[in-house]
Amino acid sequence: MSVRTPDPNPGWLSDIALEETRSRVPILYVEAVPVRVDSLGLVESVGVLLRGSATGEMTHTLVSGRVMHGESVREALMRNLEKDLGPTAFPQLPVSTVPFTVGEYFPLPGVSPLHDPRQHAVALTYVVPVTGDCAPRQDALELSWLTPDELMRREILDNMEGGRGALVREALAHLGALPA
Amino acid sequence: MSVRTPDPNPGWLSDIALEETRSRVPILYVEAVPVRVDSLGLVESVGVLLRGSATGEMTHTLVSGRVMHGESVREALMRNLEKDLGPTAFPQLPVSTVPFTVGEYFPLPGVSPLHDPRQHAVALTYVVPVTGDCAPRQDALELSWLTPDELMRREILDNMEGGRGALVREALAHLGALPA
Amino acid sequence: MSVRTPDPNPGWLSDIALEETRSRVPILYVEAVPVRVDSLGLVESVGVLLRGSATGEMTHTLVSGRVMHGESVREALMRNLEKDLGPTAFPQLPVSTVPFTVGEYFPLPGVSPLHDPRQHAVALTYVVPVTGDCAPRQDALELSWLTPDELMRREILDNMEGGRGALVREALAHLGALPA
Amino acid sequence: MSVRTPDPNPGWLSDIALEETRSRVPILYVEAVPVRVDSLGLVESVGVLLRGSATGEMTHTLVSGRVMHGESVREALMRNLEKDLGPTAFPQLPVSTVPFTVGEYFPLPGVSPLHDPRQHAVALTYVVPVTGDCAPRQDALELSWLTPDELMRREILDNMEGGRGALVREALAHLGALPA
Repeated sequence: MSVRTPDPNPGWLSDIALEETRSRVPILYVEAVPVRVDSLGLVESVGVLLRGSATGEMTHTLVSGRVMHGESVREALMRNLEKDLGPTAFPQLPVSTVPFTVGEYFPLPGVSPLHDPRQHAVALTYVVPVTGDCAPRQDALELSWLTPDELMRREILDNMEGGRGALVREALAHLGALPA
Repeated sequence: MSVRTPDPNPGWLSDIALEETRSRVPILYVEAVPVRVDSLGLVESVGVLLRGSATGEMTHTLVSGRVMHGESVREALMRNLEKDLGPTAFPQLPVSTVPFTVGEYFPLPGVSPLHDPRQHAVALTYVVPVTGDCAPRQDALELSWLTPDELMRREILDNMEGGRGALVREALAHLGALPA
Repeated sequence: MSVRTPDPNPGWLSDIALEETRSRVPILYVEAVPVRVDSLGLVESVGVLLRGSATGEMTHTLVSGRVMHGESVREALMRNLEKDLGPTAFPQLPVSTVPFTVGEYFPLPGVSPLHDPRQHAVALTYVVPVTGDCAPRQDALELSWLTPDELMRREILDNMEGGRGALVREALAHLGALPA
Repeated sequence: MSVRTPDPNPGWLSDIALEETRSRVPILYVEAVPVRVDSLGLVESVGVLLRGSATGEMTHTLVSGRVMHGESVREALMRNLEKDLGPTAFPQLPVSTVPFTVGEYFPLPGVSPLHDPRQHAVALTYVVPVTGDCAPRQDALELSWLTPDELMRREILDNMEGGRGALVREALAHLGALPA
């Protein structure tokens, strides 16, 4: 008979269990493109995180994280937004859980524009307006707000972690704000 | 030579010009389903307006209005939200102008679920969370906030102006909140 | 040292590995609502499968199956359509992988309208027109084509496996074909 | 008393009536991005029309046309596809009338990426797979099928009629096929 206290967060896995699981099934993620919008809903700027990547370099990335066992997609989205943007970002979660795009990451580079050396991951990706102050926690060092034009000019999109610039381009297209 | 001062709002038409135009082309509308959502974006209640209909009866309806000449879809949506919900409703306009449904109203009943005796109208329809206080202006008498279950139970959907209950059902389905 | 030949389909898991994985992470599925459409794209009828459920009863269900490790969402959708509808169904896969709804199944009934006693599953769900002849294989016994009105009248939607009637209602709403 | 026979196609307007109407209300259009897709629904190439523009030059454009009075969006889409691609193109109309983007054309250049000197137009825009042979009729001289990479390389997108390259970019993003 087990005398362990129940796991307070059964969605979390040990490193070994997670690695094993990653070899067996695609892992479900949620990702978010944080945006500042004007009063008519038009995007003014996009928030990109500067973070240490899996390979040790500094790269720009999006809000991103696993959906835990037993957790709803909305709960996972809110938890990861708080994790990456802090408790006072006041994200406005989408009214529908239909993502604007489905990101497919494969362990081998070149299979798709998106790539994750750790795993096959599938990411439901959302645009999320935030109205408060963002204070990145955890491993993210910095959040930059850039206009669509600045994103293009500074070649950030071509160098985002795992190819996520493709997701940002798709987000901008969805918002009617993709520079020519 | 004209000495008239320029029309301050050239989008508005005289009754005669509007009637003539309505006989020539489909008229573009925007409509909105106002919702209250929880912190995760889940719909809690839907706002329906009680209004005198074109035929003189009191019916429930949605936020609705024409897109004026020269006006963007976002501007038309905001203007009609303010007209119907008042200046302190604080609507959160969608980040994308892609509607959740396209409503097609025909002058003859029975052609489609939606019907407008005045005209052939095509309505880009959006779900719009509102966070402030709503104070209907103009011809709307009252705004009621009803849960999805209440909407079904009170047979409101079956009697909305022009068949708009079909749009509310589609909105609830889109939000993952359509009662069985 | 293993002398086993390499697994020809590494996406498939042993029953034990699958059960263990199901206790750790949400499992990614694709589901499809097969439809017959007219030349203008309007839905005429919906295909529902009659199948032995996990609990041993006969229930109606949708085309459904896991996304395998290393498999793209499009490949998984095509594989499961062929598995459930046979090789001559000629499904027209959607041009975009954005689903019309994201189904969330939890092992405990009542958490959401969708329920799967085996697992926490998240299903990307698509409407797929089929133009050919459908010959269900595997464990599906029969495919019935029903009009939206027939689906409502025959109370099929209220009794679909795992609560999938909610997905069909959402599909019909998305298609503009939800009966009042 | 009029002894004219009834107008067989009341949706068509005289040049004078159309010009007058264009000064009064935004005109509703449907547009289509024709695509060839593989068996998994992935876009292989995009069809662009070469046509004499309103200003007399040869430019690339999309399938495009007004929605007539009394005509449904689906009917207008099919009629304009047949007009521009011929009777044997076999377009697969979308199952939902929700467009992938809403194009807003203003008479003044620079207000939005899209521009139409004749009018304020709002275009419901769809991606439409075609499986048959295309034989442009009317004023279109030629239909070219180009891969997403070719579209980028040949600078076609930057020079499409009325800025429609923005719509093609949005279509490619929606299809997950926007080159970096």
